[in-house]
Amino acid sequence: MKAKSPNDTKAELIVRMFPSDANPAGNVFGGEILKQIDLAAGLVAQRHAQMNIVTASIDRVNFLKPVYVGNALIVNARLNYVSKSSMEIEIKVEAEDIAKNTRTLTGTAFVTAVALDKDGKPTPVPELVLVSDEERKKFAEGKTRMEQRAREYKLVKERAEHG
Amino acid sequence: MKAKSPNDTKAELIVRMFPSDANPAGNVFGGEILKQIDLAAGLVAQRHAQMNIVTASIDRVNFLKPVYVGNALIVNARLNYVSKSSMEIEIKVEAEDIAKNTRTLTGTAFVTAVALDKDGKPTPVPELVLVSDEERKKFAEGKTRMEQRAREYKLVKERAEHG
Amino acid sequence: MKAKSPNDTKAELIVRMFPSDANPAGNVFGGEILKQIDLAAGLVAQRHAQMNIVTASIDRVNFLKPVYVGNALIVNARLNYVSKSSMEIEIKVEAEDIAKNTRTLTGTAFVTAVALDKDGKPTPVPELVLVSDEERKKFAEGKTRMEQRAREYKLVKERAEHG
Amino acid sequence: MKAKSPNDTKAELIVRMFPSDANPAGNVFGGEILKQIDLAAGLVAQRHAQMNIVTASIDRVNFLKPVYVGNALIVNARLNYVSKSSMEIEIKVEAEDIAKNTRTLTGTAFVTAVALDKDGKPTPVPELVLVSDEERKKFAEGKTRMEQRAREYKLVKERAEHG
Amino acid sequence: MKAKSPNDTKAELIVRMFPSDANPAGNVFGGEILKQIDLAAGLVAQRHAQMNIVTASIDRVNFLKPVYVGNALIVNARLNYVSKSSMEIEIKVEAEDIAKNTRTLTGTAFVTAVALDKDGKPTPVPELVLVSDEERKKFAEGKTRMEQRAREYKLVKERAEHG
Amino acid sequence: MKAKSPNDTKAELIVRMFPSDANPAGNVFGGEILKQIDLAAGLVAQRHAQMNIVTASIDRVNFLKPVYVGNALIVNARLNYVSKSSMEIEIKVEAEDIAKNTRTLTGTAFVTAVALDKDGKPTPVPELVLVSDEERKKFAEGKTRMEQRAREYKLVKERAEHG
Repeated sequence: MKAKSPNDTKAELIVRMFPSDANPAGNVFGGEILKQIDLAAGLVAQRHAQMNIVTASIDRVNFLKPVYVGNALIVNARLNYVSKSSMEIEIKVEAEDIAKNTRTLTGTAFVTAVALDKDGKPTPVPELVLVSDEERKKFAEGKTRMEQRAREYKLVKERAEHG
Repeated sequence: MKAKSPNDTKAELIVRMFPSDANPAGNVFGGEILKQIDLAAGLVAQRHAQMNIVTASIDRVNFLKPVYVGNALIVNARLNYVSKSSMEIEIKVEAEDIAKNTRTLTGTAFVTAVALDKDGKPTPVPELVLVSDEERKKFAEGKTRMEQRAREYKLVKERAEHG
Repeated sequence: MKAKSPNDTKAELIVRMFPSDANPAGNVFGGEILKQIDLAAGLVAQRHAQMNIVTASIDRVNFLKPVYVGNALIVNARLNYVSKSSMEIEIKVEAEDIAKNTRTLTGTAFVTAVALDKDGKPTPVPELVLVSDEERKKFAEGKTRMEQRAREYKLVKERAEHG
Repeated sequence: MKAKSPNDTKAELIVRMFPSDANPAGNVFGGEILKQIDLAAGLVAQRHAQMNIVTASIDRVNFLKPVYVGNALIVNARLNYVSKSSMEIEIKVEAEDIAKNTRTLTGTAFVTAVALDKDGKPTPVPELVLVSDEERKKFAEGKTRMEQRAREYKLVKERAEHG
Repeated sequence: MKAKSPNDTKAELIVRMFPSDANPAGNVFGGEILKQIDLAAGLVAQRHAQMNIVTASIDRVNFLKPVYVGNALIVNARLNYVSKSSMEIEIKVEAEDIAKNTRTLTGTAFVTAVALDKDGKPTPVPELVLVSDEERKKFAEGKTRMEQRAREYKLVKERAEHG
Repeated sequence: MKAKSPNDTKAELIVRMFPSDANPAGNVFGGEILKQIDLAAGLVAQRHAQMNIVTASIDRVNFLKPVYVGNALIVNARLNYVSKSSMEIEIKVEAEDIAKNTRTLTGTAFVTAVALDKDGKPTPVPELVLVSDEERKKFAEGKTRMEQRAREYKLVKERAEHG
């Protein structure tokens, strides 16, 4: 298992938004953007883990601006933090107005993915090599969020099992 | 604008999961579930506000168990908290194994929706009438989460605008 | 095989109608509504039979009013009649104008489903427990329709086989 | 408005069935076939009326055999009967096993379409020119079915309006 | 393996163009038309070969006129040329304006398909029986194009393998 | 109208291939890949022209290797040649096997797009700034292909108009 840096696995998905992606109000449906966020995060996690992965949680999805039909949706996904079998992927969603040649940040999110072995059990992933100070800062912030998530997740699981 | 209770607007979406909803691993794709979560939350928010709404943020999406092709996906959405133009909707996602007649809690989430007037500006929604102690507890918890979200959202907005 | 009442298996599907569900005239495409009718009926039949089922026939599909993009389509499905391996499901389709908070009956249909064993052969389903007079009336009417369908189906089959 | 014969407007739709058309059991989903039936009938009705049309009802949809992924679905649609603004279209659905070069009748249906003027009101369509004895027989049978449908439709409408 | 004429396998696909097929400019998306071209060619090739086939190349796709939402897209596919395991299929795409009862040629293309045996290796297909002078002329032209394609394809393959 | 280099407008689309993209043989459907090729070319052409564009023709689409469900499809699009209102975009399609961390060239194509003014008439686009020898070579080759295409297109148009 070869350690990798965030730059080794980062991905930029580009998808053109079509009339079939519109919500009844005529803008791009948030659920479609969520789908692309999940796809981009999954791609990065799978590039890092090089095995099957699942999305365990998504949080702090912020929709900052509407996305319009005709825009190119650009989804940037990048690993922040890795711990045993868990990976935090940071997402930035931009909308490109192609004719005007402008890009706008329209959304952000954090996705947690877990690597699974052949029996579907969580299994360790390669270490994350941190090169820049920016990467070390993001790693530390990711660790804090991940610990908070673990506490919340435990609560939700308990409620789910005990009614 | 008539005040309403969470029971007046709650919704239960049922969608059958088909092979076309599968991810490459053969289970139901998380992005498809996210799409249904956004739909269910939007329906509840629009029932309460009785005007156009947008999803402003989603957080604490937890995927607890896989959903299988053939399952009926049952998405419960219910208002927790309302403040001026913002609404917090709590989501519970269950998977029904139809032949076995069992239901499993597979996911949870909180969605924040904002009501918009005809010019797309945030606009007040009706008050939330709280009847039971459970509803009062959920309202208070929702208020705490909403205030935390507002702080995070402000940070993200600032970063977005100032680089 | 445990006998069940219509209330044990009835289902209410809710689906938001999007621009991608429109026909060239701009209203919701009837074929999309038919798809949802088939889904709802299949869910009820499978809940009753607790095994694999197929749709054998659909009749008296009446489209009473148009459904508009933005409406929530609400498909109610309920067992009327059961005989050996066959089940008649009654469908009511409503459109909810969410902003106006109104519901309109837009369509009705009867679906016949057949339970299949592992070799794909028709196989008996549990009895239908009738509780109310309304249920007994619907059962008797369902029986009449089912016998008429059986006669028609036999004719179609014969024509199909003998040219 | 030029009178036309059934041969002038008949249509044969061919659609390849893909894995994305499968139901959870692996065969082609009946709802997908219903969608194609509605499309084929609409095409024939619009060719005859040369104006906007809506599907008013569908009946006697019989699914005789399963359709498999990989099959070419062939939907034949042909006008049987015309009266003022109403048209009855007869549907035959066949499945072509391409590698084996065989065709099987897998379904039948009758669709009633109504022509609408620019205000959405029912409006007369051209007469149906009957050439063969077969066409005259189908016209007479269609008339009988249409009158039965009109009676049933009236009942459903009344129930819908008066509870 | 029975030799067949182009008339034995030709196909005419008819598909109604819906709002969900539109590009951001509001006309039918070219990529959707390409999908239908590939489907039609594949159907003809598989009818001739009666085994699994793949599309090896497509060339000279010309979009002559826009196709509009509401049109019936009519895709004609017909075998021109056959050599060992390769088949050239000629495509004509027409758009029917149903209300006006007019058909316009909107596109043309040539598709090359290759028959594959159970191990995925190219395998001979039946001979093409040529009946008319037109068919003989199209066969000769197809041969010329196929030889040019083979040269180009070899170049592309080499570049792909050697950088 | 600002002149731009190929590097200013090049695009790399990444799309995850799902079971719903499969053909009946289980690999990714060629028509889906064609759709993505058209999308990528359109994005590049529109970035260069900064106005509405249409795909006029596609040629030399070569499918070199199958693409599998689960792969990330990577579509590279880059301007080769520009003349008045026409642009030639070169396409390279790669499939990434994510777990194995390998990329394979699976297809190539040339797309011709035309810029349109508000009345839908062809209209000049910015010049193409050529920086490297490689770019100058591709420009010259593109010119040769474009002239050949113009001759073929004229023939097809004439046949279409005169029968």
